[in-house]
This record gives sequence, structure tokens and C-alpha cells, in this order.
Amino acid sequence: MTIKDDRATGLKIAYVGGGSRNWAWGLMSDLAQEKALCGEVALYDIDYAAAKTNETIGNRIPKDSEVVSPWIYRAYETLPEALKGADFVVISILPGTFDEMASDVHAPEKYGIYQSVGDTAGPGGIVRALRTIPMFEEIALAIKENCPDAWVINYTNPMTICVRTLYRVFPGIKAFGCCHEVFGTQSLLKSALRERLGVGDAGRVDIKVNVLGINHFTWIDSVRYKNIDLLPVYRDFASEHRKSGYSEDRGGDIEFNRFFTSTQRVKFDLFLRFGVIAAAGDRHLAEFCPGKWYLQSPEQARGWGFDLTPVSWRVKNLADRLEKSRRLVSGEDRFELNETGEDGVRQIKAILGLGEIVTNVNLPNMGQFANAPPDAVVETNARFASGTVSPVVAGRLPDSVYALMAATIHNQECVVEAALNRDLELAFETFANDPLVTISLADARELWNTMLEGTKKYLGMYRL
Amino acid sequence: MTIKDDRATGLKIAYVGGGSRNWAWGLMSDLAQEKALCGEVALYDIDYAAAKTNETIGNRIPKDSEVVSPWIYRAYETLPEALKGADFVVISILPGTFDEMASDVHAPEKYGIYQSVGDTAGPGGIVRALRTIPMFEEIALAIKENCPDAWVINYTNPMTICVRTLYRVFPGIKAFGCCHEVFGTQSLLKSALRERLGVGDAGRVDIKVNVLGINHFTWIDSVRYKNIDLLPVYRDFASEHRKSGYSEDRGGDIEFNRFFTSTQRVKFDLFLRFGVIAAAGDRHLAEFCPGKWYLQSPEQARGWGFDLTPVSWRVKNLADRLEKSRRLVSGEDRFELNETGEDGVRQIKAILGLGEIVTNVNLPNMGQFANAPPDAVVETNARFASGTVSPVVAGRLPDSVYALMAATIHNQECVVEAALNRDLELAFETFANDPLVTISLADARELWNTMLEGTKKYLGMYRL
Amino acid sequence: MTIKDDRATGLKIAYVGGGSRNWAWGLMSDLAQEKALCGEVALYDIDYAAAKTNETIGNRIPKDSEVVSPWIYRAYETLPEALKGADFVVISILPGTFDEMASDVHAPEKYGIYQSVGDTAGPGGIVRALRTIPMFEEIALAIKENCPDAWVINYTNPMTICVRTLYRVFPGIKAFGCCHEVFGTQSLLKSALRERLGVGDAGRVDIKVNVLGINHFTWIDSVRYKNIDLLPVYRDFASEHRKSGYSEDRGGDIEFNRFFTSTQRVKFDLFLRFGVIAAAGDRHLAEFCPGKWYLQSPEQARGWGFDLTPVSWRVKNLADRLEKSRRLVSGEDRFELNETGEDGVRQIKAILGLGEIVTNVNLPNMGQFANAPPDAVVETNARFASGTVSPVVAGRLPDSVYALMAATIHNQECVVEAALNRDLELAFETFANDPLVTISLADARELWNTMLEGTKKYLGMYRL
Amino acid sequence: MTIKDDRATGLKIAYVGGGSRNWAWGLMSDLAQEKALCGEVALYDIDYAAAKTNETIGNRIPKDSEVVSPWIYRAYETLPEALKGADFVVISILPGTFDEMASDVHAPEKYGIYQSVGDTAGPGGIVRALRTIPMFEEIALAIKENCPDAWVINYTNPMTICVRTLYRVFPGIKAFGCCHEVFGTQSLLKSALRERLGVGDAGRVDIKVNVLGINHFTWIDSVRYKNIDLLPVYRDFASEHRKSGYSEDRGGDIEFNRFFTSTQRVKFDLFLRFGVIAAAGDRHLAEFCPGKWYLQSPEQARGWGFDLTPVSWRVKNLADRLEKSRRLVSGEDRFELNETGEDGVRQIKAILGLGEIVTNVNLPNMGQFANAPPDAVVETNARFASGTVSPVVAGRLPDSVYALMAATIHNQECVVEAALNRDLELAFETFANDPLVTISLADARELWNTMLEGTKKYLGMYRL
Repeated sequence: MTIKDDRATGLKIAYVGGGSRNWAWGLMSDLAQEKALCGEVALYDIDYAAAKTNETIGNRIPKDSEVVSPWIYRAYETLPEALKGADFVVISILPGTFDEMASDVHAPEKYGIYQSVGDTAGPGGIVRALRTIPMFEEIALAIKENCPDAWVINYTNPMTICVRTLYRVFPGIKAFGCCHEVFGTQSLLKSALRERLGVGDAGRVDIKVNVLGINHFTWIDSVRYKNIDLLPVYRDFASEHRKSGYSEDRGGDIEFNRFFTSTQRVKFDLFLRFGVIAAAGDRHLAEFCPGKWYLQSPEQARGWGFDLTPVSWRVKNLADRLEKSRRLVSGEDRFELNETGEDGVRQIKAILGLGEIVTNVNLPNMGQFANAPPDAVVETNARFASGTVSPVVAGRLPDSVYALMAATIHNQECVVEAALNRDLELAFETFANDPLVTISLADARELWNTMLEGTKKYLGMYRL
Repeated sequence: MTIKDDRATGLKIAYVGGGSRNWAWGLMSDLAQEKALCGEVALYDIDYAAAKTNETIGNRIPKDSEVVSPWIYRAYETLPEALKGADFVVISILPGTFDEMASDVHAPEKYGIYQSVGDTAGPGGIVRALRTIPMFEEIALAIKENCPDAWVINYTNPMTICVRTLYRVFPGIKAFGCCHEVFGTQSLLKSALRERLGVGDAGRVDIKVNVLGINHFTWIDSVRYKNIDLLPVYRDFASEHRKSGYSEDRGGDIEFNRFFTSTQRVKFDLFLRFGVIAAAGDRHLAEFCPGKWYLQSPEQARGWGFDLTPVSWRVKNLADRLEKSRRLVSGEDRFELNETGEDGVRQIKAILGLGEIVTNVNLPNMGQFANAPPDAVVETNARFASGTVSPVVAGRLPDSVYALMAATIHNQECVVEAALNRDLELAFETFANDPLVTISLADARELWNTMLEGTKKYLGMYRL
Repeated sequence: MTIKDDRATGLKIAYVGGGSRNWAWGLMSDLAQEKALCGEVALYDIDYAAAKTNETIGNRIPKDSEVVSPWIYRAYETLPEALKGADFVVISILPGTFDEMASDVHAPEKYGIYQSVGDTAGPGGIVRALRTIPMFEEIALAIKENCPDAWVINYTNPMTICVRTLYRVFPGIKAFGCCHEVFGTQSLLKSALRERLGVGDAGRVDIKVNVLGINHFTWIDSVRYKNIDLLPVYRDFASEHRKSGYSEDRGGDIEFNRFFTSTQRVKFDLFLRFGVIAAAGDRHLAEFCPGKWYLQSPEQARGWGFDLTPVSWRVKNLADRLEKSRRLVSGEDRFELNETGEDGVRQIKAILGLGEIVTNVNLPNMGQFANAPPDAVVETNARFASGTVSPVVAGRLPDSVYALMAATIHNQECVVEAALNRDLELAFETFANDPLVTISLADARELWNTMLEGTKKYLGMYRL
Repeated sequence: MTIKDDRATGLKIAYVGGGSRNWAWGLMSDLAQEKALCGEVALYDIDYAAAKTNETIGNRIPKDSEVVSPWIYRAYETLPEALKGADFVVISILPGTFDEMASDVHAPEKYGIYQSVGDTAGPGGIVRALRTIPMFEEIALAIKENCPDAWVINYTNPMTICVRTLYRVFPGIKAFGCCHEVFGTQSLLKSALRERLGVGDAGRVDIKVNVLGINHFTWIDSVRYKNIDLLPVYRDFASEHRKSGYSEDRGGDIEFNRFFTSTQRVKFDLFLRFGVIAAAGDRHLAEFCPGKWYLQSPEQARGWGFDLTPVSWRVKNLADRLEKSRRLVSGEDRFELNETGEDGVRQIKAILGLGEIVTNVNLPNMGQFANAPPDAVVETNARFASGTVSPVVAGRLPDSVYALMAATIHNQECVVEAALNRDLELAFETFANDPLVTISLADARELWNTMLEGTKKYLGMYRL
């Protein structure tokens, strides 16, 4: 890789999970539109055919005027080959299939435990972690072996646990985790700014926030636009919409909107009670709170303005994306360039010294989040500049808010410990202590066994 | 006060809650049998008549051969008078009456929330804290004013919150909190030692334990008798009795036994799952765990070998003690000297430099309990020696166990903060996040209002 | 103050020490050239006439094409008037006169103690602190009273002690300290980049550094230009110039150059020994090291490529500046706009939300500098963005380097404590333990008395 | 090993440095008089003949009435054999010979650096550490291999560095370091108690102290005898004797007294200046302070009431002890039982569960000494009880005192790091920053080379 005239060429980005029909296409789109970067994307996927398909799609991106940087896409059959010589590694995998996810999300329903997402927290998140951690163990070791100096960007959930595993297995790794949930909260703050003060032209990055918490349960305790303090503005906005909720017409797929948007009522409720802004989607936030607050039943959730996402929807959606993939390969559809709004490309540029940014990421706690223990993976702002990603000191959450996440922070540490030691009993204790698992020990054990059974294809390394 | 020939005379011990018919009598008994200490016990109680009665009882303690140290008992009408010039202050009050306690303990039952004690953790503990903290605020200020150098021993529950309040209000206070729950666990370990190894003559203090946790949810991670590691011994013992439970015939009052003893099944269950010894009575331990583990219903509790203590029993028991009091005053009954097994007198002696001991107490965290945040009141061993009470470094609990208490530790901080600021909304958030409060927010709010109503006589300083 | 179209008007900047003929003129120059900011500079100085003179000079700044923002300058007779309603406060005072500074710098020479600057560390720095801290106490209280929400920028030395005093006296203050020494190091790194790699067009802010340490003894452990790691580049550069030194022809005043520049030999020596880059001028660095390393004698210092600055030079230089001032007021000279290279105006803009920057500042340690104790004022990068200045986590210095500053960090805390309590004995202990005070206790006491005598006009609040 | 009726038999104590003619004889004496312990002492020494001699001496201890416990002494030719199966390991070695020590102590004198002991701090302590650390590395590895569960008691200097090395090399080791310097201070406090208050019968252990600091520079901030606060008593005592000094007639060897006792003037001076009690011999304390305070010259030291110990005296004293050894072996002299006043045997008993004690030891910082960084080896009280040695929380020294030791604490860490990595340049930096090394860098380098040369026989593992 060389940099000349503020342009990096010969970059190698290894994409683990490179057969993806979602994040991978987004990255392709962003890269094509970024003049400062050029090189190869090495696609690796346990489903090699999927990687190969993306190779085709990537290399077919039309060379029209919007495409300012033509990248080469290449599928690799092995992880080491894909990683060798990489400058950056992107990890975006689906741990298991939707069969396992269906078990994660729906098995608990029999016990009155409802999950809106089921991939981060709650019983689903924990069981998903059990199959994900060994995969990240393998990836971390492969990075250590093949490209120890590469920067590693994780998008996979459960985010906290994935990043923690990377650092536990290879302490010298240069990894961070990215998530766009805070961006959504910044957009909501833009809406508040527009509605309450009539300021309509603010950009997302002009909404300056102090971020502190853990992924999908992170908070904003200070937010400003220029010299305007947005906390009182948001207070008015949240009070106004507390009962009815707030949503913008997004157009598009009604079902998608149903399962992926919310009316922000959980967010408003948490803010008005705790005084700091919960900065993730309602469906994620609800899963970190005591189980009966927002997820006592599907009806209660709907009352709070959001629906539980059934895995069946994901299955159907995947079929749509597979069809889309087929059409892109066959040439029936043309690859369209969108702006994803993700920060990945900006981050890569800043790490290369082409611009400097501050944005929120997930990193081990080096002091940036005062309540949390050292080394716990936390989400705060970080400065990206020429080969460094340094967390910004975010300070301290109110005790009342930290109390909501304290058990989870320690549970997450236990899950990683349990999985690395293949210790399912320790994992069960974490499971039984999860805020959503409001059932007796006997029921918890029964559910645990059911859920392990539901994911057993991916637990071969444990003694079941 | 002077010390000569290893005997302190002219001591003044102020007893706040000096009308007590339980702890106060125990102290009288212990003092009468301790040669090294002599002086006056200043009895203060908001029920002056009760203090006056105890004055009579105390001064009537027969001067027979067992009584090696005759103390003077004197009731005072005001707190400042009782405190003035005190060398030690004992605080053992009942915050409110059994009417309030009945509300604390039983109001939640309508919502499926059961409490075995209801004076420390759970919704009952939190509401009790709301009325207790302002009392302790007043006591702390009076100590600061009248006897700032006195040593203060608290026996009142909720222990953690009482001690924290004393330090918040008067940071220079020399206070600690005492509780005998660990002693009970040492006795159980003696039973294990006897049953498994045939060693029958071990004294309680010969069972050397490392204590770490918070009051009524404290743990032992290392325990030895001479050179014998008792952890494996206890493991065998707990495994043996896991299902059937273990109890010794204590003789005496069947009802008392029913409501105050247990078959240790919760303790065994926690040990066998977590590998460290839960060191409090099962009825206390259960209240710190997720609500459905041991307290889903009275039947579940009974299945775990313990019964919920109804406040009606306490009311009846109090009537018995009032009758006993009457008989002691009238001379119908003779005051009998017992050995309480409490550490108070040994602690007082050690503080005066008459012997040195190490025993478990509740103190602000200065580093003795590595998982917990600074200043949180924690329970560990401390060294008592000539004017110092210094915690012994206890180290770190496994994350899986700390995860069980993490929310509670921060909740407790919030309750103190809330009460000192008369901020009932903050208190409600803590309540809604308590591990036993496994109900919807709407129900939680309804229950909260009911419970505040049930204790409102003592909440005059709040804006309801 | 209002912001419209990215321009803030109606700003009030209070300038404490507003009679300055150096920093004040620099700020005037920078403000005149910054389109985004406009308003009033309120000049306050204990020498009111000097402030008045600067008022005249400021208001005479010619309204030519370079001046894009005309500011109003106004001298105030009292500090409260100047502060009232201020958005920003700049503090740049000379604590005492050059008479006191002559005592600070030269009195120790009789005892073989040489100081190159004498305003930060060493015996001179400590005695200067004694007279400065009560001044900052007064300023902090006045800010608390008159403009508690203003942002406070300190330029006065001893920097660490001034900022620490502001926070000790008014914990809610929004203050930070600015110093350009790191900028000089960035410039040196630019020279290395040009000399070793032929890259000549790098801007100072493109040299991305991780800063950690204390003011005038701060360090850089990571430095990059785009994707180039400059540590090995600087190693070659430092090795090359280790013996001969490195200096660029700056033109201009020979005497100024003699006393204010160096040949960087101290900096090279420290880097080559410790592996991290000392990031302040050699004359400052030398004063933090053991006294015989670089300041055993004027000759030794010269051998290391720098000269001690005699206060007589400062006196003479002041006379020149007074003459310059006279000529500016009279109109004989025209106020010339320069670029100072200071960050003040960029910082003000970023705080107002007009751009976002990361730059190095002095702030209480909230976790950004892992070796240092909490609350010690340390120098690291911070993010300036819309009403927040948040330190960037800088990590940990090697123990060998921290060992060089550890005593000083604690000494600084003691000096502040001593001065706030008017406890000269505690101050003496700090003095006797300073790395430059390599003399016997008897001599140290004698020197101490001499130096207190030399500054006694400003120690009226102490009991001498 | 078995314990029956409070008596442990079949103990194995491995003594590394078992040829010693000082500490070893003391242990023999103490063991012979302790009824509760019996077994074998395994003597290992690189001078096997010396160990063999001690085997003879030990086994010849007359079996008279004072000897209540006959031990078996046995010399081993290899360290593993000696360690195998040991319950306790005592380490008391002389790292190098008096030739090396002569270099350590006297080489610096040419540069005006005087040392009173030269085995802990100062240039001598650092160079001694360089040869000691590899020895302790070897010992730690042998313990890990042969008796990982044994308790390890170190008496070797430099204490802090030895204990730190044991833990760095074998983190699971159960080691602590013992030193009697605090005991001497307790005795001095007894003298103060006798002189000022006429209390003559206090035992050393009745002087209850809170200890905090690092070995040979440790401090007492709270001291009581029964209910008497001894700080004001000691203040009077120290004031009285500040100028003249205080010494008790010890009888015996005049030269020994000359070089090993002091008149406590350093101790008094430090206390009266800092308000907390320096708790080591003056000759040790002086070496931690800035070099010109107490050790500017032999005359200055004498003025402070102590003499520098010449190594020639040690050589002569060793000859005396060798002669004594010969006479003990030959039977010319009879082994006399003394009471050493050391705590070793009491500690062993307490660890075995035969009694419980609190005494001062050197252990890694787990929170017991708030100023010091984690893991630094610090000296505080610890509780010894049945298989645990747990530090007592000692709190925080005044910043002014911590400032005196801060550089040394970090220097010590660097020396261990340097020696374990065989990095002599890092070791030199520590040396150049030592408070006693008040010389130029050029001189420091020259002295360093001389001292390395003087100890080079023991530096074979370094690249010189």
C-alpha cells in the first residue's frame, strides 16, 4: 500500500463473512464512491460460493461517473489466504443460520420471555455468544498469524462479546467494533432540533454527542449543536411525543419498517426517567432492561410502539436478498450506489492519516468510561488519526443508569470466560442471571437445555 | 474513661434505640459478664418510656457471682444528652413500627413478589430505607455535634444503607456495622467439620474465613480450620445435604425456628453453583437473587427449605417480649445472663486496646473488596486494635457472583442519594430495578404508591 | 452572543492580565483575522493604565483587508466588571514583577542551583507558585461569582499549578491550560520528516501525536504523518544530531534566539535514552530532570546547547516592548497582523461548535494519563467540540519516564495544598525535595528564607 | 506434616542460604524454643560446606530443658532436593560476596556519594539488585517446580525487589518478605512511652501501629498503646531529643553499636517535619532521601548521629562469625539459645492455624497502600491466619511523604524489569535517577561502568 497525493492505493481489505448480501454490498457501494482509497477486497466466507458471487457482483460494479475508485474483488477459499497481507480486516459474519437464530429468539417465548432482536442481550444473545466466541477465537488467531498489524473492524453481534474475545485471544490486536445505533439517535436529535427550533439543515456529525455505555445500551449525557444545548430541546420533544411516539415516514417496505423501526417511546421513557439519552434503537434498549418493563408480552411491546422481529421475517428477507443477488450476478439488475451512512470508510481514511475524525466505537475500557471495570468493552467516542484509535474520556453515567447495565457488564465477561474455557455451567449462571430471564431455576435449566439443543451444531467444541 | 490494669472504667456507651427488648437486653447481658469494662449505658429511645423501662431492668440486674461488672443504666429524654461525652454509640432502632413493616413485607405479595424478611433488600428494604435514612441523617448530625470522636456501632437494617448514610452525612465518623450472619455460616462450617472429619471441638473463631460482599449477601472464598482447607469439606457436606437440607435441633420455640432458621438449601445451592460460600441466612440470601430463583411463591420457598416470616409473627413476638419486659420490671422474672455470641463487647475491648481481634464488619470500601466501587459499604474482615478498625484486604469475588450483586450495590447508592435529596423519583427507579421487582412498570408504579402510602407517617420530609 | 451562518457575534472575552504586551497583542492579531468570531475583549489588569493602553492599541487596529473581524477593546477597572457576562476568560498574568523573578531565578545560583527558565519547576517555580496561587484563588472565586459558565483558558505559568488551583477553588469551573511547547516539538518532527524523508509540505497539525505527561515535561509516545510512523524517522534524526544539535536559522533577534531557542540536544538525549519523545523546549525539560544532568552549571548547559535566560534580558526586553507599546499608541508604529500559531482562537471556535479540533491541553486527570493519580493536572490531547473539552485517553508512559516526574507530580499537589492553607512549612518540604535542590537541608533552609524574602511583597497572606 | 493437639510435626522448612552464620542460627534458636513446631530444616547453600557446617551445628543443639522441640538439620547439594516437599521456604542469601558489596558501597564515594548501608536503595542497592534478581528468578522457578504450595519467607535485601521478582516470575507464589525495622521503631515508641508517661511494661506487640510504605522507608501514621494515642507522646519525645539524639545503652560490642545503631536523629527530623513516623533505622531512611539531606559526607552523617558502615567491618565481622562457627562445630563453644525477636516462627504458626497474628510484611499492593500503584511491593500490616496472609488496608500517606518515595517505587519496578530482560540500559536510567546519584550524566556513566566491573562475576547472564 502506498499513499500519494492523499490517495492510498494497493490497499488490501480482508472481509470475513464476505458472502454477505447486506453489509458487504454496503461496503462495495461506499468504497466505489471514495476517491482516496483503492485496492483489493479479499472476500472470505465459510460459504465459498457466496463469496464467489460477491466477487462477481463487486467486479461488475459499473464504471460510471459516480464510481470514482474501482476496486478489485476476489474470493478466497481459506481464511489465512484472505488475511495475508491485509491492511484492514472487516468482520461481519452470521454465527450459525436462521435455524439457530429461530431457537435463540423463539424458544424462550414458551416461558414468557420475549425478545425483540435476540442477538445481543437476553437468552438469545447469550446462546448466540456461545457459538460466536469460538469463531472469533479462530479469527483472532488467524489474524495474529497472518496480519498482526492490520486494523480490525467488527460489525458482528453480539458486538461487546466479539470485540472482547478478539482482545482476550490476541491482546496485541488493533480491533474496534462499529455500530450505527448512535447515528440513529443523532438523527432523532436532528428531528428534535428541526421540530422544536426550526433548524433543518444540521448534519448528523454536527450533532456533537458524548457517548458512554455498552453496545446497544449506550447513552448520551451531553449533546449540542453549535452553541445550542440540545438536552432541554430533547426534553421538550420527548415529553411531547412520550405517549404517541415519534416516527418519520420512511417510505419503502412496510414490513421492514414494522420490524426495524420504532416510535421511540422506550427511548423517550428512559430519557424522561433517567435524564440521559438512551442511544440505541428501542428494540435493543428493551432487551437490556428488567424483563417486564418493555417485553412482558408482544402486546406490551406493541403498546410501547415496537414489534418483535420474528425470525421468519428474516428468512423471507434473506430469500429476497438471494434473489437480488442472483439478478445482480445475471445482470438483470444493475448495482446501485447508495450512501450507507456507515462510518467504516471514513474510519479507514482517518487511520491512514487522510483526515481525522471522532466517532463512537466499541473498545476495551482504558479509563474512558469511569463506572465500568477496566478491559470491559465499552462504547464511547474515539479519535481516529494516523494509525491510532484513542478513546475519548466520556466520564461517568448516573448510578441509576449504571445499575441497569452493571449485571450485564459482568455477565458478558463471564460468557467470554465460559466460552473460552468451554465451561457451560458458568455460561448457565450468566443465563440465569440475565435481566430477561425472569423464571424459576428449574424452568431456566429446561430452557437452557432446549436452547443448547437448538444450536448444538455449532457447539461441537463444548462437552454437552 | 480511664484504663488501669487492663480494665476500663467510667465508660459511657450511648444506646440509640435503647428501649429495645432484644438487642439491648443482649448487650446488658454481655456487659455484665465482661470484667474489663465498666461504666454507664445511656439509653435513648423515641419511646422514652421504653428506655426508662430498660433503665429499670438494667439497674436491677442481680449482683450475683456471674455479674463481674455492674453497669449503670440511665434513660435520657433527648438524643444530645444521651450522646454527650459518649465513648461508644450503639445504634439499634426499629425504623417505624410493625405497621409499616407489614406494608413493606406484604403489600408486594399482591403482585406476586414474596419476601422472606423484607428489611434489607427487595421492595421492602428500599421503602424501609426511605424512612430510615432521614433518621440516620439526624443521628449522624447529633454525633458530629455531641461526640465526634466516639466509635459508632450500628446493628440496624438495612445495614449497608445505614452505615453509608452515617459516612455521607458525617465523613469523619468512626462507624462500622455489625451483623452475626457470618457467624452462623462459621457454625455451619463447624457442623461440616464435625460431620465429615469428626472434629467436634472447633470454636467458631477457629474457623478462619475470608469474607467479601455486602451485608446479608456476603461470601467466603477461603476457609480453614488450622491447616485444613474446609472448602472441599464443605463441598462434600453441601453435596450430601443439597436436596434434603441440613438443620440441627435447636430446641426451643417451634415457631421461632420456623421463621428464623432454614435448612441451608439455598446456601448449598449457591455454593455448589458458584464455588464460593454464601455467608448469610437463606432468608436473606434469597432476597438478593433474581426474584424467581427462590422466592417465586411461598411454596417454592418452602421447597427450598425456608418459610417467609409474616409480620404478624413479629407482632405476636413483640407482645411476648413486652410481657417479658413487664415481668422483669415487676421482679416476677429475674434477668438471666446469656452469652449472645455477638462480637460487640469484644470489639469495644479491642478498640480500647484490651486485646486485638479480627472479625467481619461493614465499612466503606477503601480497597478491601476489589470488585466493588470505592466508598460502597461492604462486608469484609477488619482488624480491631487500639483505636483503629482497619479492613483486611479480601480480594475479588468471581465475576459470576459479583454479577448477582452489582445492580444492588449501585441501587443502594441511589437509595441513599435519593433519600438525602428527598428525591422519590430516583428512589422509584431503584425500586423498579430491584431483582425482586419482576413486574411491569405500571404495576411497579402502583405498588410503589401503595407502599409509600403504607409508610407515609415516616415520610413527612419528602414531598409525596 | 448569537451564532448565525457559522459566525458568532456579541462574544465577550475577558482578558485577565489584559495589560500584557505580548500574549494580548497576539490574541488581538489572531482575532482580527478570524471571520467567525466577533465581539468585545474586556481587558483587566492590576496595572489599569496598561490595560487602557491595550484598549487604545486594540481599537486602533487598522481596518484594512486583512482584518476580517473588528473587535472592540475595553479596559475595566475591576475584575468583576471585566468578568460579568463573559463567554470566555483568558488568564495571562505575570505573578509579581521581574524583581521577584530575578530572586526566583538567580538566588539559587549561589548554592550551585541553575535554572534555565525558573517559572515552572525547580526552586523558582515553587516560589513563583506561592505568590501565584492566591491570585488564582481570587480569580477562581470571581469567575464563580460573575461568569460561572464561561470557558477559562489559562496561559500563565506555572501552568499545572494554576489550573489545579482553579479546580480546587471552584470545582465546577470549565478551565483548561494551553501551552505551545508541544507545537514546537511537532515542528521539529516536521524537520525530521523533511530531512530524512524529503517530505517538506506537512502542516503542523498533520503531525499526529499522542501526548502524555505534565506541562513542560510532556511526552509523545506515538507520532505519525499520514501512514508513516515517525518514531523510527525521529530516531535516525536524533542520532544524527545528538552531538551537534539541530537548529534552524530563525533570523531575527540574536539575543532572543540565544535565550529562547536551543539545539534540541536535551530532547535528543532523552529520546535516545527513553524511547519516547520529550515534547517541550530543552530549557524546560532540563528543569524537571535530576539537577546535575543538564543544569550543573551554566557551562554544562551550554555544552548541552542552551543558555540560561537571565532575568536582566527579560527586563531589557520588557523595556523594548514598552517602547513598542508607546509607538503603537502614538501611531508611530502600525499594528501588524501576524499569525501566532497559538491554538486559542481555534479552540474558541470549536467550543462554540464552529469546527471541531483535537489538540493538547492541561486538564485534571480523569483517566487520560494512566500513570498519574486522579485529579492531577496533566497534559494530553483533548477533543474540543460544541461546548465540551474531553481528554483523549493517552495511556501509560514507560515507568522509567514516569519515575522522572513522579516526585514532581506529588510535589505540585503539595504546593497547591500548602498555598491554599498558607502552610509554608509544607511548601518548604516540597522545595527541599525538588530535583534541582541538590543541597543540604541547612542550605535549603537558608536559600528558602532568602527566596521568601525576595518575594515577600506578594506573600502578605502568609504568616512569614 | 500433621497437626495434632496444636502441634505440627513432620514439617519441612527449606532454607535457601542455609550456610548463613547469622539468620540461620537465629532461626535454629527460635525453632528449638517453640513447642508447637517440629520437623526438618533442609539447608541449601551455593557454599555446600557452609550448609554442611550448619547441619552439624543445628544437630548439635544441646537437648537441655530450654529446647522444647528438637529439629533435624540436613544439608542438601541441590536446590530442588532441598525444596522438594517443603512446607515453608526461607530465603536468606548474600548475593555475591563482600568484594562486590565493597564495590557497591564504596565505589560511589569517589563521586561524593555516600551510603550508610548500600544494600537496598542508592547506587549500591541497584547494582546489588542486578545480581540478586537472576538468583531469585532461579529460586522462584525452582519453587514453582518443586513446592508450588509452600509458603516463602524472604529476608534477603533488597527486600522489595526480591519479593517483586518472586511474584513476577511465579505469580502463583505464596511469598512475603519480613524485616524487623518496624519492630525497632516500636521499641523506640516504648521508650517514648516510658520516658514521657512512665509506662514501663508495655510489650512491643502492644504498641499497635498502622504501617505503610516500602521496605526500609516505611511509615507509621497511627500508633496507640491501649487507649493512649502515642503520636503526641512521640512528638514531645522527638522534640526533646531532636538535637541530642536518643540512644539506650545496649552494652556489648562497641563497633557493632557504632555501625548498626543510631541516635534516631534522622527519624526525629523526618517525624517533626512530616508528621508521620519514619519506621526504619536511620541508616536506611537516609538512603531514600535526597542525597544531600543526611548523606552529603561522612561528617554530615555523623552530625546526624550515625556512621556509615564500612564493608571492611563486615569482612572482619564475618571472620569473627566464621571463627564462632568453627568453635560451635568443634564443640569448643556451646550453641546458646537467644530470643531473636524475629516474627518468623510466630508467622509459621499462624499460617498453620496455631494462633493468629497481625504483623508487618512486604507484599504486592492489592489495595492496602492507596498511594502506591497496584502490584508494587509495599510494607503494611497483614493478617496471618490458617493458610492466609492478607494485607490490612493501611490507607494513604501524606503527599509530601509519598513524594519522597514515588521515584524510588517506579525505579524499583524498572530495575526488576531491566534485570528480567537483561536490559542494562534501562537499569542505568534507574541508577541515574536515584535520589543519591546527584552527579552529572557523564560521571554517572563512569561510576556505573566501575560498579558493573566490580560485580561482573555475577553478571554473566547480561551482555556487558
